[in-house]
Amino acid sequence: MKLYDSAGAPNPWRVKVFLAEKGVAYETVACDMSKGEHKTPAFLAKNPSGKIPVLELDDGRCLAESVAICRYLEGVYPAPNLFGDDAFEQGFIEMRNRQIELELWSQIGTSWVNGPIVAKLGRFTQNPLAKEISDKNVERYYGRLDDEFAAHVYVAGERYSVADISLLAAVNFATRMVALKPSNELKHLWRWHSLVSARPAVQACL
Amino acid sequence: MKLYDSAGAPNPWRVKVFLAEKGVAYETVACDMSKGEHKTPAFLAKNPSGKIPVLELDDGRCLAESVAICRYLEGVYPAPNLFGDDAFEQGFIEMRNRQIELELWSQIGTSWVNGPIVAKLGRFTQNPLAKEISDKNVERYYGRLDDEFAAHVYVAGERYSVADISLLAAVNFATRMVALKPSNELKHLWRWHSLVSARPAVQACL
Repeated sequence: MKLYDSAGAPNPWRVKVFLAEKGVAYETVACDMSKGEHKTPAFLAKNPSGKIPVLELDDGRCLAESVAICRYLEGVYPAPNLFGDDAFEQGFIEMRNRQIELELWSQIGTSWVNGPIVAKLGRFTQNPLAKEISDKNVERYYGRLDDEFAAHVYVAGERYSVADISLLAAVNFATRMVALKPSNELKHLWRWHSLVSARPAVQACL
Repeated sequence: MKLYDSAGAPNPWRVKVFLAEKGVAYETVACDMSKGEHKTPAFLAKNPSGKIPVLELDDGRCLAESVAICRYLEGVYPAPNLFGDDAFEQGFIEMRNRQIELELWSQIGTSWVNGPIVAKLGRFTQNPLAKEISDKNVERYYGRLDDEFAAHVYVAGERYSVADISLLAAVNFATRMVALKPSNELKHLWRWHSLVSARPAVQACL
């Protein structure tokens, strides 16, 4: 199978860590977004939303959306389990992953598309007030996470899951590309960050 | 089990349709958001994000996030299948559901929080430019959906799924509460809307 990837992009990175956790071999296809390679007719046939990553199977079928790709991979390569065992755990991990995406990642994304790097591309109407609000929301959410990591080892409790991969991708992207590094005072958040960053699957993708 | 609900809110509505499709009995607890009942300490103990719906099981465990609640319910009540059978179909349905949520619902949400009803509550900094952009994004996405429904019966191809419930909730909320009704010219989209709206589980929740 082939993964359409772009260096530095946080969403394909999630899938690459997931694949590394599963120990699955795959091919990557570099997609240069600065040249609009994710908006060509050939690419839009694979994903009409014009986004990476896309996983193309050997039979030509394609899947987009990082978490949907990971869900497929979990079905085909069940070990190690990253989406939960019983029905409640599956629901709980999905809840935590969605909270990270909808409450934190969405805000980092708003700060990103209204920040200086994307402004230079000239593809989005810039909205400085939106960035001002989302910057504050990100800071506030980091504080919530720090409190949660004072009580629990991982995002979804006491076990590693896809939700940890989502949060690590979000924090690293926010730190490196959006100037939204969590404060050094958030010791529980950084404790979690060190723990997850030390995993061999994560190290292999850094 | 108990579902914390609020009349007219689109997210609990998704869970109610899902429960009706499964034929599962449950109790509802009305949560008056205009009085801030989703932000009380007692409610935040059930969902620290302060959002509805929340599903409280008989043993006291709670789940938030509509799709995560539905995922749990799918595990406990597998018939009829609404999340997909094999690994690819599960991934495909999740992809389509996420596209509806991340590309359409998120934009309807931006138009909603920056629209006249929420403005009166005074809880969010209003951003009229954000609404102007999201209104346009919603119109554009309706056009994409119309093209897709010219080729496929349901959101995720030729079978009904959780992604249809998400889209129906989004379109009905946009129409009734955000003044973003799809144009009558989008005949394929309205063909789908009639088909899905006629389902007994949907009718039971209207």
